[in-house]
Amino acid sequence: MRKLVLLRHGQSEWNKENRFTGWTDVDLSVDGVSEAAQAGRILKKNNYTFDAAYTSVLKRAIRTLQIVLYEMDLLWIPVYKSWKLNERHYGALQGLNKDETRDKYGEDQVHLWRRSVEVRPPALEKSDKRYPGNEKKYASLKEEELPVTENLEDTEKRVLQDWRELIAPNIKGGKNIIISAHGNTLRALVKYLDNIPSDGIANLNIPTGTPLVYELDENLEPITRYYLGMDGKIEDDKFPKKV
Amino acid sequence: MRKLVLLRHGQSEWNKENRFTGWTDVDLSVDGVSEAAQAGRILKKNNYTFDAAYTSVLKRAIRTLQIVLYEMDLLWIPVYKSWKLNERHYGALQGLNKDETRDKYGEDQVHLWRRSVEVRPPALEKSDKRYPGNEKKYASLKEEELPVTENLEDTEKRVLQDWRELIAPNIKGGKNIIISAHGNTLRALVKYLDNIPSDGIANLNIPTGTPLVYELDENLEPITRYYLGMDGKIEDDKFPKKV
Repeated sequence: MRKLVLLRHGQSEWNKENRFTGWTDVDLSVDGVSEAAQAGRILKKNNYTFDAAYTSVLKRAIRTLQIVLYEMDLLWIPVYKSWKLNERHYGALQGLNKDETRDKYGEDQVHLWRRSVEVRPPALEKSDKRYPGNEKKYASLKEEELPVTENLEDTEKRVLQDWRELIAPNIKGGKNIIISAHGNTLRALVKYLDNIPSDGIANLNIPTGTPLVYELDENLEPITRYYLGMDGKIEDDKFPKKV
Repeated sequence: MRKLVLLRHGQSEWNKENRFTGWTDVDLSVDGVSEAAQAGRILKKNNYTFDAAYTSVLKRAIRTLQIVLYEMDLLWIPVYKSWKLNERHYGALQGLNKDETRDKYGEDQVHLWRRSVEVRPPALEKSDKRYPGNEKKYASLKEEELPVTENLEDTEKRVLQDWRELIAPNIKGGKNIIISAHGNTLRALVKYLDNIPSDGIANLNIPTGTPLVYELDENLEPITRYYLGMDGKIEDDKFPKKV
């Protein structure tokens, strides 16, 4: 049996300001830093350890991981940073206030943009300063890899590339792995691991700063999954189960 | 012309307590955290940027690097952690107070242990709890790689393995590199880069938290080297020059 830990970054400045974030590289809030430290203490208290870690190239996920590894005295393990673990790209919505966007486009449209597996938010123009092709961080990507907007399936596709090429082989090789990433990155991974249909994933909201543990068999099929608290497993009947 | 930046970690808890540290994994002090942030601000103000970073598996160097990259908004770059960039192993002196050690063994002996290129401190027994073979962090090392004590030449040998195999090819490939490491790791590298004889390196003491910039030609021969302050180059006639 292998354990995999998924961790959504702590609260960011824009979570707090209720803005669409996506690939915008906003920092953790003060509360987000505390959440990350708490996640580290939970993992330590429950005797978890890791051989390697994966994260995105966005600082809210990287810092969450750094804080967790510091608490666990594991700063020395290898950390792989990949754009394919970035949050879903929110297109032209990035930076907009969620309430204002609801006022403008209506509750239903915003819910579709946020939660539909297939609907994409309006795309960024390549001339937009928010276009990732303008950032040094993404200079090594081919133009067709640079998103201008994504639905959850788009995000899932790139997350699963990293899963298959980098992460799964390491877990099969017996390594204990933590992935520090984002709401939609982790929803995509949970959808895949638990084979959840598109209409079953819409309302799954993984909480920030709470380790989500998957126990996997040798084929990386989930045996069970649970959130971890200071006193061990947290019972949560609402968590979608394998179908 | 290529620029390489060497950075000695900020003050650690044991620098402050005046104890021999070596491979003991002590944390930065509060002042050490400030020094690291200042180094990051210096690099940013002078428009430095990096494509990749190298550090040891000791938290005082890793955290220094993390703080610098955070200040520079470069948390996303790849960071390679290697035991070969660890501080010189101080053998059985690790953990001892430097003044008490001087009282016991005499000033001259302690100076030899600290500054001689050839003399090694008393070795650790493999049964000693400080023996690195007892740490998970070093589990992948062969027994003959695990030091029980080192002189500066021993340290230089392993540092140069990383230099030749990992770091130099990246610099030749046009990458801007920072190495966040330790007093003796960096002395070893400076000794090699500037071809400084053994009797010329004894009194070189690289300050903590102050970026040391090497400008290198295409063969990685130093053109010039200088410490960097908020207002640019710091003139320092005492810095040993290439011979």
